[in-house]
Amino acid sequence: MKTTAEYSADIETAIRSLDLPDGKLSSLYAPVAYGLSAGGKRIRPVLVLMGADAFGNNCTEALLPAVGIETFHNFTLLHDDVMDKSDMRRGRPTVHKKYDENTAILSGDTMLTLATKYVADVEDGKLRKVIDTFNEMALRVYEGQRLDMDFESSDNISIPEYLEMIEGKTGALLGASAKIGAIIGNASDKDAALMYEYGVMTGLAFQIQDDWLDTFGDATTFGKPIGGDILNAKKTYLYVAALAEGGQTAEALRTAFNIPAGEMRIKTVTRLYEKLGMKEKCSKAVGHYSAQALKALNSTTLGEEEKEAFRKLAEKLIGRKK
Amino acid sequence: MKTTAEYSADIETAIRSLDLPDGKLSSLYAPVAYGLSAGGKRIRPVLVLMGADAFGNNCTEALLPAVGIETFHNFTLLHDDVMDKSDMRRGRPTVHKKYDENTAILSGDTMLTLATKYVADVEDGKLRKVIDTFNEMALRVYEGQRLDMDFESSDNISIPEYLEMIEGKTGALLGASAKIGAIIGNASDKDAALMYEYGVMTGLAFQIQDDWLDTFGDATTFGKPIGGDILNAKKTYLYVAALAEGGQTAEALRTAFNIPAGEMRIKTVTRLYEKLGMKEKCSKAVGHYSAQALKALNSTTLGEEEKEAFRKLAEKLIGRKK
Repeated sequence: MKTTAEYSADIETAIRSLDLPDGKLSSLYAPVAYGLSAGGKRIRPVLVLMGADAFGNNCTEALLPAVGIETFHNFTLLHDDVMDKSDMRRGRPTVHKKYDENTAILSGDTMLTLATKYVADVEDGKLRKVIDTFNEMALRVYEGQRLDMDFESSDNISIPEYLEMIEGKTGALLGASAKIGAIIGNASDKDAALMYEYGVMTGLAFQIQDDWLDTFGDATTFGKPIGGDILNAKKTYLYVAALAEGGQTAEALRTAFNIPAGEMRIKTVTRLYEKLGMKEKCSKAVGHYSAQALKALNSTTLGEEEKEAFRKLAEKLIGRKK
Repeated sequence: MKTTAEYSADIETAIRSLDLPDGKLSSLYAPVAYGLSAGGKRIRPVLVLMGADAFGNNCTEALLPAVGIETFHNFTLLHDDVMDKSDMRRGRPTVHKKYDENTAILSGDTMLTLATKYVADVEDGKLRKVIDTFNEMALRVYEGQRLDMDFESSDNISIPEYLEMIEGKTGALLGASAKIGAIIGNASDKDAALMYEYGVMTGLAFQIQDDWLDTFGDATTFGKPIGGDILNAKKTYLYVAALAEGGQTAEALRTAFNIPAGEMRIKTVTRLYEKLGMKEKCSKAVGHYSAQALKALNSTTLGEEEKEAFRKLAEKLIGRKK
């Protein structure tokens, strides 16, 4: 197997080699290329390549499907940015800012179909499984995004509801990436299902860790100002776990969130989380889902070298910027 | 073969039987059901059923893929309405009016994936052809929509450019509907390609006829006020064909379109079109593409009864409200 940096470089090359129409159709496809060129760690397509290589030593067949997964991911970012009215992403104007909102909607739709087309570029015998996995994943992602939107206007979200939301919004795509890679590598159905589990659980651990970092992390390594979730009254794991304590605790938390958005609210809520032991509870949840991911991985028929590669990837993803 | 009314009724039943998730996910799926329940002639899914029946006597297998085609069509309407800021469709509030814009974007995305999923519900041996036809069609539709948007700010569009736009926006989906039906009916590749041609050419004739009706039709049967395209300075076949005359004619047309939007502009432009013989030229184009559609149809290996059914459908679609 190659290193993740090598797989990631393969993805960058494949993205740059995409032969998107230009000329008078560049008003449709240039925003697609712009969305795809934003870079990032390319974790999801790397998972596809790793899965195909680990099970079948054929990451070449997996290259375009991997680009499809990244195209899907960038499509969701593009439409999410429209819905959230976010102006910047990764230090650049978002598509609807650089172009306009209608362009972001239509070029986003184009990315979803291109993603489906690229993902379908597998041997005929694997097409059914790959397409079904992809479509089901996409529905889970929309459902997760919808729940996240609905949570904004709700102040009574349970831990299971929160987990369902992030399983859709973050877990499903990582799970489907690992699974589609495994399918392309001719893995057994059982191994493919275990790789899905590995990806989903890694996704849950990653998202909960992200919540932790937003409150307790180090701004210089986290890359964003600390306390953003508290300022935006986001329903994070810390928040829903604290709410689940019920009674006076929940009341105190709701009161603290009524403090005008600013340093005082961040300090008060952070102190409350600490007092309630949420810092540890959150870390424990990260550990739990990381362990679940490794358990699934260890149950596959993969060799030790391949398992170690997936372990390292999960570690890199979850343990980042702690 | 059944009548188009019977096929259409089958589609309505299948749409009502879709088992979309409810409960807390109804905020995602209720707008999907709302979009799908708008009714209409269901021409596109009827074409799928007819194709499957005509070639293979198996419209049962084609039922969910046909619903997929209708779901795709309604997805495009939903996002188009957001982009055009249209508040009403078929006498009801549009999805972004009844719910909100973010809901229309996200539930629209969901419809596109559901459409792909439904269309993929065919025998494994047909999946590659069906999925490829569907994805290529979807890209043509976005390209057509994009050209249409770009035409708004251009006053120098050639007839070929206009035809390319409506081939994407209107023709491709009718073509893919007929072709996917044929594939499900186990038609030969040649017959499937001819059915695509039949659908596309029918679509061109339909769209040009629609342009004609908007200026020269009868408001009571057309269902919309006459002259809407002129008021909105839409780039119709009449407009681009008149422009193509060049010189003073083009100048006169551009001047007429500068008259403030109102009855005077409608009357002046309509008189200009008549004087230039555009009424006849447009009718002739409709006749030309109708003939192309029938030529493709007649070249298939279908029996006379089946050919007659498709002839009648094209006639019904193009000859409507004349």
